[in-house]
Amino acid sequence: MAQVGIVMGSDSDLPIMAKAADILDKFGITYEMNVISAHREPDEFFEYAKSAEDKGIKVIIAGAGKAAHLPGMCAALFPMPVIGIPMKTSDLGGLDSLYSIVQMPTGIPVATVAINGGANAGILAAKILAVSDPELLSKLKAYLKDLKEQVKEKDKKLNEIGYKEYLKEQ
Amino acid sequence: MAQVGIVMGSDSDLPIMAKAADILDKFGITYEMNVISAHREPDEFFEYAKSAEDKGIKVIIAGAGKAAHLPGMCAALFPMPVIGIPMKTSDLGGLDSLYSIVQMPTGIPVATVAINGGANAGILAAKILAVSDPELLSKLKAYLKDLKEQVKEKDKKLNEIGYKEYLKEQ
Amino acid sequence: MAQVGIVMGSDSDLPIMAKAADILDKFGITYEMNVISAHREPDEFFEYAKSAEDKGIKVIIAGAGKAAHLPGMCAALFPMPVIGIPMKTSDLGGLDSLYSIVQMPTGIPVATVAINGGANAGILAAKILAVSDPELLSKLKAYLKDLKEQVKEKDKKLNEIGYKEYLKEQ
Amino acid sequence: MAQVGIVMGSDSDLPIMAKAADILDKFGITYEMNVISAHREPDEFFEYAKSAEDKGIKVIIAGAGKAAHLPGMCAALFPMPVIGIPMKTSDLGGLDSLYSIVQMPTGIPVATVAINGGANAGILAAKILAVSDPELLSKLKAYLKDLKEQVKEKDKKLNEIGYKEYLKEQ
Amino acid sequence: MAQVGIVMGSDSDLPIMAKAADILDKFGITYEMNVISAHREPDEFFEYAKSAEDKGIKVIIAGAGKAAHLPGMCAALFPMPVIGIPMKTSDLGGLDSLYSIVQMPTGIPVATVAINGGANAGILAAKILAVSDPELLSKLKAYLKDLKEQVKEKDKKLNEIGYKEYLKEQ
Amino acid sequence: MAQVGIVMGSDSDLPIMAKAADILDKFGITYEMNVISAHREPDEFFEYAKSAEDKGIKVIIAGAGKAAHLPGMCAALFPMPVIGIPMKTSDLGGLDSLYSIVQMPTGIPVATVAINGGANAGILAAKILAVSDPELLSKLKAYLKDLKEQVKEKDKKLNEIGYKEYLKEQ
Amino acid sequence: MAQVGIVMGSDSDLPIMAKAADILDKFGITYEMNVISAHREPDEFFEYAKSAEDKGIKVIIAGAGKAAHLPGMCAALFPMPVIGIPMKTSDLGGLDSLYSIVQMPTGIPVATVAINGGANAGILAAKILAVSDPELLSKLKAYLKDLKEQVKEKDKKLNEIGYKEYLKEQ
Amino acid sequence: MAQVGIVMGSDSDLPIMAKAADILDKFGITYEMNVISAHREPDEFFEYAKSAEDKGIKVIIAGAGKAAHLPGMCAALFPMPVIGIPMKTSDLGGLDSLYSIVQMPTGIPVATVAINGGANAGILAAKILAVSDPELLSKLKAYLKDLKEQVKEKDKKLNEIGYKEYLKEQ
Repeated sequence: MAQVGIVMGSDSDLPIMAKAADILDKFGITYEMNVISAHREPDEFFEYAKSAEDKGIKVIIAGAGKAAHLPGMCAALFPMPVIGIPMKTSDLGGLDSLYSIVQMPTGIPVATVAINGGANAGILAAKILAVSDPELLSKLKAYLKDLKEQVKEKDKKLNEIGYKEYLKEQ
Repeated sequence: MAQVGIVMGSDSDLPIMAKAADILDKFGITYEMNVISAHREPDEFFEYAKSAEDKGIKVIIAGAGKAAHLPGMCAALFPMPVIGIPMKTSDLGGLDSLYSIVQMPTGIPVATVAINGGANAGILAAKILAVSDPELLSKLKAYLKDLKEQVKEKDKKLNEIGYKEYLKEQ
Repeated sequence: MAQVGIVMGSDSDLPIMAKAADILDKFGITYEMNVISAHREPDEFFEYAKSAEDKGIKVIIAGAGKAAHLPGMCAALFPMPVIGIPMKTSDLGGLDSLYSIVQMPTGIPVATVAINGGANAGILAAKILAVSDPELLSKLKAYLKDLKEQVKEKDKKLNEIGYKEYLKEQ
Repeated sequence: MAQVGIVMGSDSDLPIMAKAADILDKFGITYEMNVISAHREPDEFFEYAKSAEDKGIKVIIAGAGKAAHLPGMCAALFPMPVIGIPMKTSDLGGLDSLYSIVQMPTGIPVATVAINGGANAGILAAKILAVSDPELLSKLKAYLKDLKEQVKEKDKKLNEIGYKEYLKEQ
Repeated sequence: MAQVGIVMGSDSDLPIMAKAADILDKFGITYEMNVISAHREPDEFFEYAKSAEDKGIKVIIAGAGKAAHLPGMCAALFPMPVIGIPMKTSDLGGLDSLYSIVQMPTGIPVATVAINGGANAGILAAKILAVSDPELLSKLKAYLKDLKEQVKEKDKKLNEIGYKEYLKEQ
Repeated sequence: MAQVGIVMGSDSDLPIMAKAADILDKFGITYEMNVISAHREPDEFFEYAKSAEDKGIKVIIAGAGKAAHLPGMCAALFPMPVIGIPMKTSDLGGLDSLYSIVQMPTGIPVATVAINGGANAGILAAKILAVSDPELLSKLKAYLKDLKEQVKEKDKKLNEIGYKEYLKEQ
Repeated sequence: MAQVGIVMGSDSDLPIMAKAADILDKFGITYEMNVISAHREPDEFFEYAKSAEDKGIKVIIAGAGKAAHLPGMCAALFPMPVIGIPMKTSDLGGLDSLYSIVQMPTGIPVATVAINGGANAGILAAKILAVSDPELLSKLKAYLKDLKEQVKEKDKKLNEIGYKEYLKEQ
Repeated sequence: MAQVGIVMGSDSDLPIMAKAADILDKFGITYEMNVISAHREPDEFFEYAKSAEDKGIKVIIAGAGKAAHLPGMCAALFPMPVIGIPMKTSDLGGLDSLYSIVQMPTGIPVATVAINGGANAGILAAKILAVSDPELLSKLKAYLKDLKEQVKEKDKKLNEIGYKEYLKEQ
């Protein structure tokens, strides 16, 4: 039984959505992943969003670009948190996706992350589940400690070899 | 039987949507008008959009603000033209509404008019119906001639009384 | 006799306009296609837009970029629907084209689709003609069903091979 | 013991933050509310954000305007979900606040809601807590049903008295 | 015989266009002023723009808002300089007007001034005519000297009474 | 003796400024071209702008990018028309250049053309000089007729070979 | 002898510039304040900026709006730090001022503060002078401690009287 | 003992930060350079910013992208000047970074330079230190003279070989 539902309107969003899945895998969070279009198959989408709770899903991560309705429509149909990922677009840089996802009317919030923020959507889902899961919370803290160590190592290396050498290696 | 369905997500959009209704009245086009929220009552909305064709509706005019999903979701469920009116918003000026309505994905176009363009939505609906209704087309031409006369009268007045006097009267 | 007139201000817009033509071909809608510049040959443009109705044209699809006046000037001269396609621009991403097309004054609407939305312009033209053409409406419904099937197949494949494998194939 | 921490950088944000508190009150969710500035009292802010978990707080709602660092810095120090509310600003409409809150780097997500979206921040906090609280989930569903009824009543009234009468009453 | 043609698409633009006329009056430059809409009366507009040269007009000042086509269409039909004034708009601040006027395609430039820059349009027209009119050039230099004196007087006053007193008088 | 001064702040602007020079060459208009930075060599710049009139220059074409002060500072020092070309920038697309050039205060207009509009700056300079030079005006009309012919030829070719063939040749 | 020069292009900027002066007064920093326009009196401006160093000025605070050239031109002529304040504008919100001030080319930086950030410009000037003035540094630290106390008092009051009462008093 | 601290949140910012270091090297200003993330290692960051003064640092140069909190948080903890460099971003062009850095609240200014303005940050640091270091001021003047000579040489070359030849060499 999946704890998280990952949905995207088009398979062109998959490289970003995969980053969310990678994070969930890392934390041992179960998920299912679907390509479902609120615009092109509204009935299937409705069925999906309305049955998600019964299937045991606790959080939905929805990614969409341009006039990105998928996250907001999920939030209209699913009573627990929906996380929205605005896709970068080639003409407006993702500003269209961002506005379409974040500017939701009162009553129907979407927890919006950065443009192309696939990994952060996964982490936010983990943070939400960790509210009632101390073990997962420990894993999250360990992960954040890891991030910290990575920065420290880069800083150490920069101070050992100097910025000119560091730049050459990039 | 209504030819046009006018829908808005919130009654705060009514002053703009009323301008569309005024135009339809002027042309003798029948319409029904509803407050229906794709976000707050998705089932009712689905029922509305899917039954519109059977009720004889030929064009839907949908207005919405912010993360404006109503026009796009109508276009996903109704097979004939959907006209979208982006509402002006107090923070982003309506840019959020505009992007959420106009940037639809391939397959599901929304015929978007200007921000707060209620009257133009009504005129566009009339133009669409006029494609197969010569009498309505004549009315449209008469209306456009009227607009022209109004401009001519303003120009005449400006040249008669001069711009300083004209400004005082504004 | 063409039902739809496709016009563009420059042949650099052709790759996008061709997508509209492809859709019309698919639906068996007749069209004529022209490169006509409202700026560089205003007389020829006027002649074109004013004679379109007599030639039997029911819908004009006009594409233009930057200070995109072509769709709006068509709408000033042609009494039936004009669909505007804002071209993506290299500096402002197409925002200039979008504003110049969608923000029309009262009386002269342009049915605006997404930036570079050539295919959607074709579909919107078909939707407009389908208002009075039941056979075309059936074709439209079949087309939309096709779109739905394509999404379903992608979803099926994603769940069969998993996202890591799917990404490799993209 | 409070379940939610509501923080704002300035008491000028209070009218928006109060809407979040109103929602939490409605759902019987306990909270504490503080004016704490990450910029003007970084030590106090650090102390607050680092001790929140020990105090039993499960979700932080942080509102801020302009170069809005408060939500992001909370997310850097608190391991469970942080909800960010971008404040509308008088010059840039809140776009500065939105970008400063939503565009967080990988590892440190902020669950961003709409500009001035105080009520939605409260609802999102409730949705997050409802993941492990069936009773709260029931309350949320009842609340959403209420929203639906309000729209239905408006629609009913509109169709009873007509839009011209309705506009007069607004 | 007028040297400058001042045109606007709507009499709502008159307060800004009047500033251009005021400047021309100050320099003794003759002008005619008209309300002509390229959208609502395209034939009358064409007639105006094509006959302007024969009437002796040397420069056209055209103001328009939103999808502002008037200046660009003037430039397509009139062979001498066209100055465009983008009108401030209530939703997009005049950005729509600015883009629609300044982003003209190669071959058809519009000399664009600031949003609501009515006075500057008048001054630019004077500068253009001054290229071949030494007397007018002298007047322009005197005017600019006047502007300079005004700034100097303000600076003198500020240093005499101090900024606190100065603010009280504003 | 040069009629037009072409100035740019950096030689990286040369590809765009060269298009203005090409146009002037085509019309037989004399010009001088300089790299002069208002920021890096303010004294030299002042000397240039103040001596331009005495050297016989009638129009200055100034191109600049980012915080583009060169055109505006020319307009502060030179009493006849200054044409400004906003350079496209890699981060903001040229919006910074456009605002810095077009939004001039009352008294000091810059005749602004499109982002990267080098050719149009040249044409606008020609239009300004043509106000008092009938021969140049004839050349301008011939040039515009040429532009028209080019469009007609493209349209003819499109209708002869069809859009699919045309696209292959692009 | 003044340590700081405060300059503005127009006396309409005085309410914002006065906030910088208030801060300097509070810290006992001497300053002179002038209305000088780089556009309307370029010679006087040049004289001002070039003589500032000799007069003992160490930092210039320059405020300007729209195509705001004053700060950048000061930076071109004065070898020590120039602080730029972008003025809010009625049409573009101050984005034009911000871009014109912050996007300076390599070699000529302007230390830019927030739109309408008069007080912050004063504080930044104090921070710059405090680099070599330990007594001023102490005053700055005391000022920042004051700011902190003010926030603490607001927080205390909020927790004493509750947010509903607090809102009533605002 | 370093006079300047250069910090960046990620080593991906190094190519831009290196330009600041190059400038400091050129002027003989000592500096230390660190990768420190306010988000990923808030404790280490706090320690860094709070101890900088004791280590003798007089100016901090901080670069960051997207929701760029590093410069503002440095300014909250370090009492002397903080210079902020907004990093260009792939989706929003750096507008997110710029807003997050420049729009600081009253009391906590960040001296913001252009997007990707690494060199200018170094020069601004030098200008700040030059306020109390006449020798450094002399070096700065020499550097600016050098910049001037470079422009003059380009101008000379352009006038010797002509723009067509010059373009070929670029």
